Amino acid sequence: MGERQLLMIPGPTPVPASILLAGARPMVNHRGPEFKAALDECTQGLKRVFQTKGEAFILTASGTGGLEAAIVNFLSPGDLVLSVSIGVFGNRFAKAASIYGANVEKLESEMGKAADPAKVKERLAADTKKEIKAVLVTHNETSTGVTNDLASIAKVVGGHGALLLVDAISSLVAMDCRMDEWGLDVVVAGSQKAFMIPPGLVFVAVNERGMQAMETAKMPRFYFCLKEAKRYLDQGQTPWTPAVPQVFQLQASLRLIGKEGLQNCFARHARLSRAVREGVKALGLKLLADEAVASSAVTAVRKPEGIEVAAIRKLMLQKYDVVLAGGQGSLKDDIFRIGHLGLVFETDVIACLGALGLALKELGWKCDPGAGAGAAVKALGG
Amino acid sequence: MGERQLLMIPGPTPVPASILLAGARPMVNHRGPEFKAALDECTQGLKRVFQTKGEAFILTASGTGGLEAAIVNFLSPGDLVLSVSIGVFGNRFAKAASIYGANVEKLESEMGKAADPAKVKERLAADTKKEIKAVLVTHNETSTGVTNDLASIAKVVGGHGALLLVDAISSLVAMDCRMDEWGLDVVVAGSQKAFMIPPGLVFVAVNERGMQAMETAKMPRFYFCLKEAKRYLDQGQTPWTPAVPQVFQLQASLRLIGKEGLQNCFARHARLSRAVREGVKALGLKLLADEAVASSAVTAVRKPEGIEVAAIRKLMLQKYDVVLAGGQGSLKDDIFRIGHLGLVFETDVIACLGALGLALKELGWKCDPGAGAGAAVKALGG
Repeated sequence: MGERQLLMIPGPTPVPASILLAGARPMVNHRGPEFKAALDECTQGLKRVFQTKGEAFILTASGTGGLEAAIVNFLSPGDLVLSVSIGVFGNRFAKAASIYGANVEKLESEMGKAADPAKVKERLAADTKKEIKAVLVTHNETSTGVTNDLASIAKVVGGHGALLLVDAISSLVAMDCRMDEWGLDVVVAGSQKAFMIPPGLVFVAVNERGMQAMETAKMPRFYFCLKEAKRYLDQGQTPWTPAVPQVFQLQASLRLIGKEGLQNCFARHARLSRAVREGVKALGLKLLADEAVASSAVTAVRKPEGIEVAAIRKLMLQKYDVVLAGGQGSLKDDIFRIGHLGLVFETDVIACLGALGLALKELGWKCDPGAGAGAAVKALGG
Repeated sequence: MGERQLLMIPGPTPVPASILLAGARPMVNHRGPEFKAALDECTQGLKRVFQTKGEAFILTASGTGGLEAAIVNFLSPGDLVLSVSIGVFGNRFAKAASIYGANVEKLESEMGKAADPAKVKERLAADTKKEIKAVLVTHNETSTGVTNDLASIAKVVGGHGALLLVDAISSLVAMDCRMDEWGLDVVVAGSQKAFMIPPGLVFVAVNERGMQAMETAKMPRFYFCLKEAKRYLDQGQTPWTPAVPQVFQLQASLRLIGKEGLQNCFARHARLSRAVREGVKALGLKLLADEAVASSAVTAVRKPEGIEVAAIRKLMLQKYDVVLAGGQGSLKDDIFRIGHLGLVFETDVIACLGALGLALKELGWKCDPGAGAGAAVKALGG
């Protein structure tokens, strides 16, 4: 009936009522004391969740705007850039670099696989003249539900010395991403993912090496200029008028995350994702990704033979008010995706798998329709 | 006490409670039917307020992002661009063009003056080889409270044939801006101004000539690419995840504006701005701009001799909960600005001038402290 949906997509994710209301407070001057207090608190809180002592910037844009910022502030036209892409969002990051004049070399993996750190190492080792200026990596590839071994990739990039630019839009807060410990130079995260706030903001964290690279980078930048962002942040402001409601919502979100504890938050996402995978398998469906690299944020499920993805999504939405995502890129009609990040609980996962069992049965799939919910309950400790 | 502020700045402007709550509805899939319906309604509604049959795009960014979009989608590096700048925002528009490689020629006016259409005509007439590819104009210069005679400027630009790119961020909905009738090719407007919604969205309207120019424009663009925006809009979507709450708020705003009627809305802004000017003068203060070119959205007031702008703003905020804006650029300490656009009523203007009288008296200014409110009431028909 549409009055209460179970939003199981990999962003935007459900927003807690307290965060919805934090965005509904009367407007304030974005150059006044109330906003400054919120911005300062958010900046400090972001550094904690990025696990960095570096800089953290809040930009008014969607995740893609953050990817553009992570390119144009650190590179110059003609720079050789190694794109370690494992899907649609890896390709998007590479495209941003190439549009602004970088010379992009792609190290691609098959959709559904993780990047092989050994292959990254091999390519970087061959670059004896140190021509590669930066490596682009997606931490969690939302289009396939695969999480890269970012710590290992960072280690090999560190050995070479290229800048490491990381898309952590759908991983941050859901999965461990140790910016300083692993040596990530620039990391991008989005508001509408595990932060549980509406879309509208993107966060870009930059370490000292990144800040230095900014000094010589020559790609054109205006709206996304982080030098301007830094200059204003030092006064408790943003260069341009920010999405004020989302900043107050970020403040509320960071307090909630602080209360749960970052490690507990990672553990919750891991536990729920395991329950989703067990449930999906119990319904006789196949996972796209190998479980060793499966994402804690989103699970990609192969289309059951003889049933269209569109039919499953339509029935789930219209009859059970459960919103699932389709496939993207070359996997468009081959998979559907279940998002389980941000404000998602045990009960949501169980309910989603129960509805999926009912929908699949109705569409003619041979399975025990209750097996999915049952397996999820069992995986959750039942 | 800070619990209820009178926000009299030129954006962000106060948001009606019904619009605040429209942004607090539970999150939806930005690629689903509920969002598509809102986006379609907003796009049609925007065309009405832009007074155009052209395209209208909704981007997740602040106004400055829209200015960047109005440059990079229509120009190529090396293009000669005439910047008709009368203040901080005119300079910002020019800077965006120059950063992306345009050859920017400035036709500046003194801060507080409007652009002279005859001078624009003269410069364009001298361009017999038609080297000038575009003219940049600010409709309402927020930093000085001056409104340009856009119809006349558009007429002379039309005679030359250059593209006319217009910053109408703080004018649209507050002042008449007839995109099609006047022949404006690209027009930018912001959510946090007369639309009465929070910051986070910028609107870019493009006519057919603009859409054609997009085909050959070579400046790099990714996040702000309007070709992508058009491709997705045709499916009821945006290329990147949009600020969903602000889109629902725009839907509510456009319905409110439709109910008031665009002409009534312009008349209300003109009436209130006249009351502000009369009140300010009655307190013995001087206006920055000549009244013939005074803005309906914001009024710039010269600093009273012997009293600092910062002191006035501080007292107004701390004692009377009235938020005023300071000066910008070269006028930083010379003026303060009173915003009166969006959700502003007769009572707000009267209250603001009353508080200003009290504050000025307390700061030692010789005046009848009630004269401002009195003159405002009189100007409003009292």
